[in-house]
Amino acid sequence: MNQSHTKQKAPRDEATHVVNGVDVEVLGGTVGAVQAEPELGVCRFRASNIWVDGARNESRVTGFYGAGQEIAHRQVFAMVADEPPILAGNDDGANPVEHLLHALASCLTTSMVAHAAVRGIHIQAMESRLEGDLDLNGFFGLDPETPKGFTNIRARFRVDAAEGDMDAIRELTQFSPALNTLTQGVAVDVQVARK
Amino acid sequence: MNQSHTKQKAPRDEATHVVNGVDVEVLGGTVGAVQAEPELGVCRFRASNIWVDGARNESRVTGFYGAGQEIAHRQVFAMVADEPPILAGNDDGANPVEHLLHALASCLTTSMVAHAAVRGIHIQAMESRLEGDLDLNGFFGLDPETPKGFTNIRARFRVDAAEGDMDAIRELTQFSPALNTLTQGVAVDVQVARK
Repeated sequence: MNQSHTKQKAPRDEATHVVNGVDVEVLGGTVGAVQAEPELGVCRFRASNIWVDGARNESRVTGFYGAGQEIAHRQVFAMVADEPPILAGNDDGANPVEHLLHALASCLTTSMVAHAAVRGIHIQAMESRLEGDLDLNGFFGLDPETPKGFTNIRARFRVDAAEGDMDAIRELTQFSPALNTLTQGVAVDVQVARK
Repeated sequence: MNQSHTKQKAPRDEATHVVNGVDVEVLGGTVGAVQAEPELGVCRFRASNIWVDGARNESRVTGFYGAGQEIAHRQVFAMVADEPPILAGNDDGANPVEHLLHALASCLTTSMVAHAAVRGIHIQAMESRLEGDLDLNGFFGLDPETPKGFTNIRARFRVDAAEGDMDAIRELTQFSPALNTLTQGVAVDVQVARK
């Protein structure tokens, strides 16, 4: 991992409303609005995807529904998925399940950082390594008893924070939407229509 | 969605071993190797992540374990996650659950395209729109009864293929590792150590 991305963050004065790089006044404003009117918490997140060729396809994320309105992102986000040569791809992007691990890593990170911020817990640095077990006997359809998805995922975090804050920080992982989605499962309705 | 990414793919002669842009001889070679020696199907996919600041963090994917060996990707893949301003981010990247939707969209797409290829089913184009429901009352911790993750995900695909092949193509979604992981749930072991 490129360690140049790790940088020390100076704990900032809470009078600036910024803790861990999170503007807790802004975040608190959203939390307060949802608390006052729970319906504002309803969100619909979206991604669209176009198959390019072979194992390569690309997603676009442009906006979402939240706080009772359609909200456009400041820019269009593009993500590329491909497969390595062993799976007949050209390795032009991480593969779908690697993107899934990124989603989980980023969600756990943001959940800890943001929830720590609103609690006044300062974090100087955080990094993680995730690994998931997947048996191709399932995906290839060679053995119907073999699960087709990840069977286990391990997430290992290293956090630079005060020793006395570590237990509180560990507790905050429970808030992660991606963690909850993955551990509890979610109903997915797939419909395939002819174009 | 930028329609310029949709392009017509000419069905290719199977003598070239390429169907839907997938080299079925290469893919068949991997399938055959795993069939002959099931242990070769065991994979460990990985991502590492570093928190940058606030809601922004970045993942790197460099390689994986599969076919009985460590395999390096041809390049290092970097993914950026952030949050929109309403969630106290700078909108420098899709947010974690949007990345999760991308992972699912890309996995469903690749699963259909690859499994169709080895079955000789030609697909000319494929696109999808995914949407997931998430209630911030859960993530914010405002209501312990509200789930913190996605409660429902809808995936809508449009596929350009022969009408007679559509039912077979729909069946292929069942092979998607991300779909199976998300619908069936997965054990995630999170450990947070002090740096």
